[in-house]
Amino acid sequence: MEGHIYKPFDRELNDLKENLLFMGELVEKAINRAITSLGEGDSELAAAVIADDDKVDRQELKIDELCLKILALRQPAARDLRFIISAIKVNYDLERIGDMAVNICELVQELNVEPQLKPYVDLPRMADLAQQMLQQCLGAFVNANPAIARQVIAHDEEVDRLHDQIFHELLDYMTRDFSTVTRSTRLLLISRHLERIADHAVNIAELVIFMAEGKIVRHLRDNKGE
Amino acid sequence: MEGHIYKPFDRELNDLKENLLFMGELVEKAINRAITSLGEGDSELAAAVIADDDKVDRQELKIDELCLKILALRQPAARDLRFIISAIKVNYDLERIGDMAVNICELVQELNVEPQLKPYVDLPRMADLAQQMLQQCLGAFVNANPAIARQVIAHDEEVDRLHDQIFHELLDYMTRDFSTVTRSTRLLLISRHLERIADHAVNIAELVIFMAEGKIVRHLRDNKGE
Repeated sequence: MEGHIYKPFDRELNDLKENLLFMGELVEKAINRAITSLGEGDSELAAAVIADDDKVDRQELKIDELCLKILALRQPAARDLRFIISAIKVNYDLERIGDMAVNICELVQELNVEPQLKPYVDLPRMADLAQQMLQQCLGAFVNANPAIARQVIAHDEEVDRLHDQIFHELLDYMTRDFSTVTRSTRLLLISRHLERIADHAVNIAELVIFMAEGKIVRHLRDNKGE
Repeated sequence: MEGHIYKPFDRELNDLKENLLFMGELVEKAINRAITSLGEGDSELAAAVIADDDKVDRQELKIDELCLKILALRQPAARDLRFIISAIKVNYDLERIGDMAVNICELVQELNVEPQLKPYVDLPRMADLAQQMLQQCLGAFVNANPAIARQVIAHDEEVDRLHDQIFHELLDYMTRDFSTVTRSTRLLLISRHLERIADHAVNIAELVIFMAEGKIVRHLRDNKGE
C-alpha cells in the first residue's frame, strides 16, 4: 500500500503469499466438504475429498519450490528470510490440515455403513470455527497482523470447549448403550481431527506473533478434557 | 584438494545436523522425564520439564538461525536447499514434541492430586516406543537413510494399537465407575499426546523418504480406534 517498502523481489514474495492463500483455500474446501459428507451421509463426496488431496500435496511442493527459488535467486534480507522460513512452516501446517480432512472422510465412509447415531450439531459448528480460524490466521500471516493472530488463539478455547462437550456427550452414549461404541469412537475421532486442525491454525497464528513481536507464544493452549 | 564431494559449507551442514540431534536429545529427555514423573507421581520433576521447555524453544530458534545463516552466506545447490527446507520442518516437529511433553507434565500435576487410578504399564511402553521412533527418524534424517525411516513408520502401528487398548481400558473404567472419569480422561489425554509424538516422528520419517526417493508417503497412517 505504501510504496516505500518496494523491493526487487516483491513480486516473488507476493506470488508466495498468493500460493499460500490458494493452499489455504484448498484445505478449507476439503474441511468443508468433509463435514458436508458427514452431515449428508455422502460417501461419494468423502471419496472425492480423499482423491483431491493430491492437489494439496502438489501445492505444498509448489510452495516449497517457490521458497527454494526465492532463496536461490535472491539474497533476501534477514526479515524476508524469516518470512520464508515461516512460510515453509505454514505450508507444512496446511498440508497436515489437508491430511486431517482426509482422515475425517475415511471415518465418514466407515460411519455411513451404520445408521446415524444422532443429529450432528456441534461437529459442524467446530468445523465452521476451524475454517474461520484458518482463514484468519492465513490473512494475519500474509498481512503480518498479530492482532488478528491473537483472535485466532482466543477462538481455540471455543473449539476445545466444543470438543469437551462432544466427548462427554459421546461418553454418555457409550455408557448407556454399548452397541454405540464403534460409532461414538469414530465421531470422537472426527472431533479430535477438527480440534487438531484448529491447533494447526494456532501454530500459524503463533508464527505470526513471533515474526511481528519476537515473542514466543507457545503453550498457551488449553489442556483440559479429551 | 580434489576431494570433489567436499563442499565449502560441509562444516555448516554438519553443525546443523548436530544441532538437530541435540534438539532431539532435549525432547527425548523431556518425554522420558514426563513419563517418569507420571509413574512416580513426581510433580516436581514434572515442573522441571515444564521449566526446561525454554531450552527447547531456544534450540529451535538456534536451528532456524543456522538455516538462515547457511542460506544467506552460501548459495546452496538444489539438493542442499531441499535438505535445509526439510531441516526447518524437522525442527518444527521437534518443537511440537517438546510441547507435548509439557502437556503431559501438566496433566501429571493434575493427576497427582488424586489417588492413582491403576498401575501404568502401557503408557510407559508407548513412551519408550515413541522415544525409539524419534531417535530412529532423526538418525535416518541426518544419514539420509530411507530404510530406517520405513521402520519408524511401521512402529507407528504398534503405538496406535497401544493407544486403542488404553482407550478401551479407560472406557471400561469410566463405564463401571463414574467417579473415575476425570482421571481416566487425563490418562487418555496423555496417551493421545504420546500418539501425537509418534505422529511427529512419522512426519520426519516421511520427509526422509521424500528427500531420498521423491515419493510422497503421507496418509499411510492408521485411522482406527480413538
